[in-house]
Amino acid sequence: MYLHSLSGLSMASVLGLAQLSAHAAPVQIKAPAELPAKATLADVIKASKPSDWRALDPDNTLYMDIPSGRVVIELAPGFAPKHVANIKALVAEQYYDGLAITRAQDNWVAQWGDPNEKNPKPIQHAQRTLPGEFTVPLKNIKSFTRLPDLDGYAPQVGHSNGFPSARDPKTGTAWLTHCYATVGVGRDSASDSGGGTELYAVIGQSPRHLDRDITVVGRVVSGMPLLSTLPRGTAPMGFYDSPEKNVPIKAIRLAASMPPEQRANLEVMRTDSAAYQAVLEAQRHRGGPWSKVTAGHVDLCNAPIPVREAGK
Amino acid sequence: MYLHSLSGLSMASVLGLAQLSAHAAPVQIKAPAELPAKATLADVIKASKPSDWRALDPDNTLYMDIPSGRVVIELAPGFAPKHVANIKALVAEQYYDGLAITRAQDNWVAQWGDPNEKNPKPIQHAQRTLPGEFTVPLKNIKSFTRLPDLDGYAPQVGHSNGFPSARDPKTGTAWLTHCYATVGVGRDSASDSGGGTELYAVIGQSPRHLDRDITVVGRVVSGMPLLSTLPRGTAPMGFYDSPEKNVPIKAIRLAASMPPEQRANLEVMRTDSAAYQAVLEAQRHRGGPWSKVTAGHVDLCNAPIPVREAGK
Repeated sequence: MYLHSLSGLSMASVLGLAQLSAHAAPVQIKAPAELPAKATLADVIKASKPSDWRALDPDNTLYMDIPSGRVVIELAPGFAPKHVANIKALVAEQYYDGLAITRAQDNWVAQWGDPNEKNPKPIQHAQRTLPGEFTVPLKNIKSFTRLPDLDGYAPQVGHSNGFPSARDPKTGTAWLTHCYATVGVGRDSASDSGGGTELYAVIGQSPRHLDRDITVVGRVVSGMPLLSTLPRGTAPMGFYDSPEKNVPIKAIRLAASMPPEQRANLEVMRTDSAAYQAVLEAQRHRGGPWSKVTAGHVDLCNAPIPVREAGK
Repeated sequence: MYLHSLSGLSMASVLGLAQLSAHAAPVQIKAPAELPAKATLADVIKASKPSDWRALDPDNTLYMDIPSGRVVIELAPGFAPKHVANIKALVAEQYYDGLAITRAQDNWVAQWGDPNEKNPKPIQHAQRTLPGEFTVPLKNIKSFTRLPDLDGYAPQVGHSNGFPSARDPKTGTAWLTHCYATVGVGRDSASDSGGGTELYAVIGQSPRHLDRDITVVGRVVSGMPLLSTLPRGTAPMGFYDSPEKNVPIKAIRLAASMPPEQRANLEVMRTDSAAYQAVLEAQRHRGGPWSKVTAGHVDLCNAPIPVREAGK
């Protein structure tokens, strides 16, 4: 009887995974009144049209191959144009190949870069450091679908072309927010001390207090479990305490540089579509029979962004 | 130079891990003005007094032993008295011993219970199911230190004896919230279909939309990486697709039933202490030199609750 336990929970899956059918369990005497059935995330995905989805842009999609598989990262050049260009330059000169994931801190980040501090890998054409792109002018971001839901960290939050983002009309700035799977640029204390040679992905509770304090360049759209299940490092801040524990990076490649048949065939639900509004509504107001109350609210980082294999 | 990258990030660690000393990097030309240095989480912990901490109550502390180590769970009897009593009864009759973790869904939960649905393990004295304890009367919860910070899911949020919690004066109810490490009771569609034979721990972004919809019984205070790094199940909802992949539970024991020398010697910072207010303030307003802006806000589930070995 417990296979289906917590069946209501599957709706929050970041990917649009299959959902088990609803139960027809009889209403219990004294049980709270049942909520009416409502569209679930799975229902919304099933009812969506092809035009509600977009393919990943091969010119802004990275494949990071590690021994356990492939992590697919979508870059957001609108929010960090210089860093994204630099990361693509680093990828083009195969800078990351042979480097490693050197850090995995629980409920925090997995981080990768050059494990050899004393004799760092030379950079040929790209930049080692750049001025931080912590925010961009609001006018540069044409697409923004605002969430009406309260947020404690920013005056306005919503989605820009599939990325959780925020903006502040008073300062005229916009930025990408730190949610699960967000990819950012490690830096030292100086705000111009990062450039993309060290990157991290969020593997825990959204660390929104980092927003506007670090350059965010994109998000992982596939392969998060390869990062989230990494053994946690036991040195301070989750670094691995010996080089043998580092997880080697075989290669990071731009999708556009790969033959089409070797590319990940993923598509992402358009966050400016009506279907996506239905996704948000399914999160805010879940229906019965599993749910007994509805939250009436969705947090920016709890809003799933469906990803699927194209044509499925 | 990159060992210290993201050094500002360590403050969000749930445990009070050692923090590397601040950098003395020269201020860059054109760099934003430095924020004044402020107490970090590590500083607050260092400055705390013994009275700012409390030992775990052995009568409400569980040890779950799995092959990779021990997970320590603090129970919250005030919020789920019948379920906590029932779970302790299940522990007393060694019900969980030999059962398994059967599910690990990425950015969601790890769940344990009886993997044998067709021939379930008999229960001797405890109950198999109980009416849900999704909320409790507000007047039953004597301790509540309210966070002044905005929350989208509840009218009031804060901490009750070390547990993230919420309450609604209008309905006169209080409840424990779903944050990273929260432990709850799996159930089927009927609200009285759970009883503690199936439990789960949150291993990802806080699923606050489950609040008041499921019985929460406590939180993991030590050993989260043993759950968060479990291989993700590939069957629907993250269940393992074959019995061999289940992770066996050697035993779950009440700390009070163990000889004192075999108990975990942990203490938790009192969430009603002045030191804890300083923890919250360190999260809201981080100082330089790493941080360039302060969030000015802390989300309930981003408020670290420091845990340490007693006497260290």
